[in-house]
Amino acid sequence: MFNIAILGCGVVGSGVADILFDKQEELSKRFNQEVKLSKILDIKNMDGTPYAPYLVTEPADVFEDDSIKLVVVTIGGLDLAADRCFAALKAGKHVVTSNKAVVAAYGRELTKLAYENNVRFLYEASVGGGIPIIRPMNICLSANDIYEIQGILNGTTNYMLTGMYKDKMSFDDILKDAQAKGYAEADPTADVDGFDAARKIAILSSIAYNGFVDFEDVKCIGIRDVIYADHELAATGGYAIKLIAGSKNTEKGVRISVEPKLVDKSRMLAAVNSVYNAILVRGSYTGDSLFYGQGAGKLATASAILGDIIEILEAPDRQNLPAFVDNTAVIIKDSDDKERFYVRLKSTFNDTESEELKSDITNIFGNKAVYLGYALSDNTTAAFISDYCSEAELKVLCDKLAQCDGVESIAYTMRVAE
Amino acid sequence: MFNIAILGCGVVGSGVADILFDKQEELSKRFNQEVKLSKILDIKNMDGTPYAPYLVTEPADVFEDDSIKLVVVTIGGLDLAADRCFAALKAGKHVVTSNKAVVAAYGRELTKLAYENNVRFLYEASVGGGIPIIRPMNICLSANDIYEIQGILNGTTNYMLTGMYKDKMSFDDILKDAQAKGYAEADPTADVDGFDAARKIAILSSIAYNGFVDFEDVKCIGIRDVIYADHELAATGGYAIKLIAGSKNTEKGVRISVEPKLVDKSRMLAAVNSVYNAILVRGSYTGDSLFYGQGAGKLATASAILGDIIEILEAPDRQNLPAFVDNTAVIIKDSDDKERFYVRLKSTFNDTESEELKSDITNIFGNKAVYLGYALSDNTTAAFISDYCSEAELKVLCDKLAQCDGVESIAYTMRVAE
Repeated sequence: MFNIAILGCGVVGSGVADILFDKQEELSKRFNQEVKLSKILDIKNMDGTPYAPYLVTEPADVFEDDSIKLVVVTIGGLDLAADRCFAALKAGKHVVTSNKAVVAAYGRELTKLAYENNVRFLYEASVGGGIPIIRPMNICLSANDIYEIQGILNGTTNYMLTGMYKDKMSFDDILKDAQAKGYAEADPTADVDGFDAARKIAILSSIAYNGFVDFEDVKCIGIRDVIYADHELAATGGYAIKLIAGSKNTEKGVRISVEPKLVDKSRMLAAVNSVYNAILVRGSYTGDSLFYGQGAGKLATASAILGDIIEILEAPDRQNLPAFVDNTAVIIKDSDDKERFYVRLKSTFNDTESEELKSDITNIFGNKAVYLGYALSDNTTAAFISDYCSEAELKVLCDKLAQCDGVESIAYTMRVAE
Repeated sequence: MFNIAILGCGVVGSGVADILFDKQEELSKRFNQEVKLSKILDIKNMDGTPYAPYLVTEPADVFEDDSIKLVVVTIGGLDLAADRCFAALKAGKHVVTSNKAVVAAYGRELTKLAYENNVRFLYEASVGGGIPIIRPMNICLSANDIYEIQGILNGTTNYMLTGMYKDKMSFDDILKDAQAKGYAEADPTADVDGFDAARKIAILSSIAYNGFVDFEDVKCIGIRDVIYADHELAATGGYAIKLIAGSKNTEKGVRISVEPKLVDKSRMLAAVNSVYNAILVRGSYTGDSLFYGQGAGKLATASAILGDIIEILEAPDRQNLPAFVDNTAVIIKDSDDKERFYVRLKSTFNDTESEELKSDITNIFGNKAVYLGYALSDNTTAAFISDYCSEAELKVLCDKLAQCDGVESIAYTMRVAE
């Protein structure tokens, strides 16, 4: 008998329950033992729902029940969810969670505690929703030295960026639209300022680079300052704008950030639209691999939790302490890497005088700078893409350009993803 | 001590050896036991190579060596490679292979034999080269009812289709180019006629649908009849042409084929170019997931083999007999599903008379048929996309169109992928 308890019966938790109702007979047959949902711990009133018969309200009902072998933690927030994970592992139960805040903050302690208690702690659903990414990185790609990850890890902001361009909308309008459709929350900070994606890229980077990465070290630049004209100008140059949660492992340490970047339209990442997520993993042997799918949603996320449950049913005794439990990654905050930058400026020229602006840009930024012209939607806004330069060099050159006639200000810059 | 032997030191086998040379210290540390390449069985002379010290020529040197726990089978072809897999499993050794012919033909017997001998038989590298796909499907997505797979599973043909369009080449010329670059073999049949991809989609479908699919039941239409004008006309309608190895699981059974199809350019699969591979998996809970990467190549394929070795090091005792060992899928050979078709025809009109052709098409195929016009590259060739119809209905309508003035013949048809 393999009884499962769900802690927190919200969107994802009820999705797990729904799949278990559908599949517990099939799973029992596959694993030659009775596999079933046994209890749901929640404080909500669930009368009249299919979950009501399973409802318990006291944690002890789960933690002191020896028939429960596995606990699914789908409680939101940090502290209570983390407490429940620790308590379940201490009680000798396997834990599966979709809570990225818990994994980002306590992933290594929980992994170690599971190891010490001969149970497993799995969290495939914490990054990329239904997309298989943790297990492929942990096993399939793990002979590789992974040196870079570029992810579209937040569906809300990808929906907003896609819609902003498609429907020529402002940030405020597309945010309202996303809120109306339930893709963005009333307080959208976690999504639009990049903090949600920061936790996810910190989790992936810890696994990939064999050293713990603290999500608080992730540089976050959200999408609040991206305007419709940026999309229009980027498209002129053959680029799409995506919020890239990315990290690079270099000899000096790990660079990690969440920031809007220009992505060449010939690349797979540029084709990831609306609420979909994707993760590009660059490995020493495999080159580029990409994983794409639904990054959120009740059943997609619950499906990833079921994958972890199945992994535990197949290999309950498997244990291998990952290197990030003992090692901590060195984070590089300031980099002098040469990159290309998209530069948007406010100009008092109109676009008929653009030749003068273009030659100012070439004079200062060199022949390899690519002038994108003026936005059709706003004839005081122009943009170009710089040649490779460091962030410090960019600043010096931008200051110089800001002195030119007709240049009112350098309004915004974004990196070009390579 | 965990000694590994490689049988067959060709491109992939030597790649596995190279990675083991690089990584055996790291693996030994990770798994707290000495993990190393111990023997290479091959009949080639390897004097002067780094592989020479490991070379043995007698199978008994491997099969009767109790220190060898795992055998990597990277022999090409079918019979010898299969014999070696059977022999290794019988000798109580884990087997990892990249040989898709062996897996497609004997996958279920080998899986069962491994189970009976308490060892493991893994074959992640047999489909999609370095792309993690077998393990994600087997575990991460396995709570889903997978109902469709669409794969670009052959790098040679994807390179050829991509190049044919980009460089306006004929089939014969792009084949020569692919052969010159080493992407296609002197006898290109296995690739261009779809037989290589057929084995791969049969393997994936067996796993996905829990019933063995014989690759000989896969309907194969290669790319020999695709011409440059098809790409040009497809692009006019917003489509790319890809060789799709696809299968669908329906209530009546499994439809499975390898055939060139039109893929809407807004879809991720349409952005998979050159030698890259990708696999789209449609699941009941996850919706669309896609896996992309290098589908072949020495180190990418070897990386997948290393992933299997690492899986075995972590969970040597794991065993679960998949449903395809006992179940056989029902194959639907003829389908009356309604689909859309691309129809290319030879016309004696020239393109100034295209209005007449267009109205003939509308009269016969209805208002929803999309006329794509004449090819710029060939003004006797025109094409359109039909409304949804069955293959039988298409044939009747095409026969009718062939009777119209100015229509010389219906030259070629392809399905539109949905």
